[in-house]
Amino acid sequence: MASYNFAAGPSALPKAVLAAAREGLGDWDGNGQSVMEIPFTGEAFARIHSEAEATLRRLLAIPSDYQVLFIQGGAYGQFSLLPMNLLRGRESVDYAVTGHWSQRAANEAKRYCRVNIVADGATNGFTDIPEWPEWSLDPAAAYCHITSNETANGIQFREWPETGSVPLVADVTSDFLMAPLDIRRFGLVYASAQKNAGIAGLTLVIVHQSLLGRALPITPTVFNYELLAAANSRINTPPVWALYLAGLVFKWILAEGGLAEMAARNRRHARWLYQAIDESGFYHCRVAESARSSVNVCFELPTAPLQQQFLAEAEAQGLHNLKGHAAATGLRASLYNGVSEAAVSGLLAFMHDFARCHAPAA
Amino acid sequence: MASYNFAAGPSALPKAVLAAAREGLGDWDGNGQSVMEIPFTGEAFARIHSEAEATLRRLLAIPSDYQVLFIQGGAYGQFSLLPMNLLRGRESVDYAVTGHWSQRAANEAKRYCRVNIVADGATNGFTDIPEWPEWSLDPAAAYCHITSNETANGIQFREWPETGSVPLVADVTSDFLMAPLDIRRFGLVYASAQKNAGIAGLTLVIVHQSLLGRALPITPTVFNYELLAAANSRINTPPVWALYLAGLVFKWILAEGGLAEMAARNRRHARWLYQAIDESGFYHCRVAESARSSVNVCFELPTAPLQQQFLAEAEAQGLHNLKGHAAATGLRASLYNGVSEAAVSGLLAFMHDFARCHAPAA
Repeated sequence: MASYNFAAGPSALPKAVLAAAREGLGDWDGNGQSVMEIPFTGEAFARIHSEAEATLRRLLAIPSDYQVLFIQGGAYGQFSLLPMNLLRGRESVDYAVTGHWSQRAANEAKRYCRVNIVADGATNGFTDIPEWPEWSLDPAAAYCHITSNETANGIQFREWPETGSVPLVADVTSDFLMAPLDIRRFGLVYASAQKNAGIAGLTLVIVHQSLLGRALPITPTVFNYELLAAANSRINTPPVWALYLAGLVFKWILAEGGLAEMAARNRRHARWLYQAIDESGFYHCRVAESARSSVNVCFELPTAPLQQQFLAEAEAQGLHNLKGHAAATGLRASLYNGVSEAAVSGLLAFMHDFARCHAPAA
Repeated sequence: MASYNFAAGPSALPKAVLAAAREGLGDWDGNGQSVMEIPFTGEAFARIHSEAEATLRRLLAIPSDYQVLFIQGGAYGQFSLLPMNLLRGRESVDYAVTGHWSQRAANEAKRYCRVNIVADGATNGFTDIPEWPEWSLDPAAAYCHITSNETANGIQFREWPETGSVPLVADVTSDFLMAPLDIRRFGLVYASAQKNAGIAGLTLVIVHQSLLGRALPITPTVFNYELLAAANSRINTPPVWALYLAGLVFKWILAEGGLAEMAARNRRHARWLYQAIDESGFYHCRVAESARSSVNVCFELPTAPLQQQFLAEAEAQGLHNLKGHAAATGLRASLYNGVSEAAVSGLLAFMHDFARCHAPAA
């Protein structure tokens, strides 16, 4: 039986990447060492690192005045490290709260400064993104933070807010590398790797060089963006295996046709799924159409027992990890780059059958 | 040709662990997912996590009133996170500086409070550990910090200082799991994993529960020891693969005979190497005999060109990564648990031959 993983992250990796990863466990440097054993100060690691960065720069067309940092840990750590790194000489930050993760990011920033909530999606139950022309932006803010895609709520930005002279900062963790991204629109973007850039334990930060040098004195050395940039992300031992995996994923995306191709696939998969939901008269998506995430498709069934039954039968048919986020009540299918068309087709067929069996007779 | 890795970390992994790691890249959960793809909120990961912790507790006989935390990143991050987590209500900390890493740990703590250097090995050029009865301990300090083994300088504690009511805190990164450790002597110990507990990207913190709840408000949520303990180290996505590898290493140590066996092997390897150095009349170790590290054997040759030649010929014979730390001038052989007796014998034979060829005629 085929088996498919719709988890919100750590998420499914492309089979080709898993196959390539196996090489890293063997004699990788010709000296009998696996990737996990090579010194991070040596040539073998330098090659892994520089190739990964070069491929990422090519994929995203990252301008040369932006630094690419590979940092230990996940995006949640950056919720604190971001204000620590950008606050010097400023007293406040702007945050748009559009769901579970942007709320946490804003909460974390409050440890270090005044946080101005420029838009609060709680007023619509996180079913839509507040129109940006109505955001209450503060021109003195150190930056304005958004979460490009909310995994728990299934909400995604389609266009970027205009923030004038205030740098726009985005947590792009969950839709990173799923479509082209105009880096010039941002002062900084960050993404933990375990969605579309490999495995847990690594976060990518792409930052304009003008934002380096603004760290508060409390910023730990190994998490100081300016020092990381100066040391080529090697102040201390980087997460070597996670960085190796990220490089493999970047190469795979390039070989598959790049970000335009990833976007085309994802749009197709998401369109099929939302269409199936909307046309079913059985499944329901609460998110406003203009803000629906192409990454995390959240939906509900008429009753909680039916949802349980749906999950159990889906599992039995090899459709895994469709339960929604703990903070939400419904189901969720995550459509990261590693989720194949066969997986989406399998889910659609199952949803169709399940609805036919359980929908009230017309 | 045999090939051996004497790197200071990331270091050689036992071959049996590498073989076991391969299973993690295959269908690990019976649902077609590799370890790198399973959700951290699911049963499959919970099993990996709880087995790893249970094995570690057994190896070290960790008392039940100590928490085991698995944290993202390396020990250098803890240099900051440690004072952040333990300083509430205190104004200063005690640090013994015995080499490169304890110096950095002390420097980092200075971001958050007054740092009292209770012992300064710089006065002897970091060739010995200042006698602890002469340390200038402060009874009001939040804790007293030591680095159990200094990888760059090749210095290691043989006994622990008495710090009275002040909790003793140790960075045990480089000799963790190489010998039994009486956890009760410490308020907290921490170790990044890439020496003897797997791969880079994970740090273990073993902390007495009385030290939880002392975090400063600036402590990031995901790095707050109390919150990590309450959430079983799963506030956000843990470094799943690194934790899986750590569990494999713990099991391997247990199967090999536990920490007493690791200590016996390491003592034997270190004794052979220091003996070869001392008896050669050619190689030289600057560290006082009572403070010599059994982990990182640092030594020098009569001249810099000879050192270069030694490194080149060693490489050619499959003896890799013998260059010393960038902050030191000499050579270094690291004898972590993953370094086999065959590796040590190979190095000894090479050193003997090299000395015979290049030592001045008697």
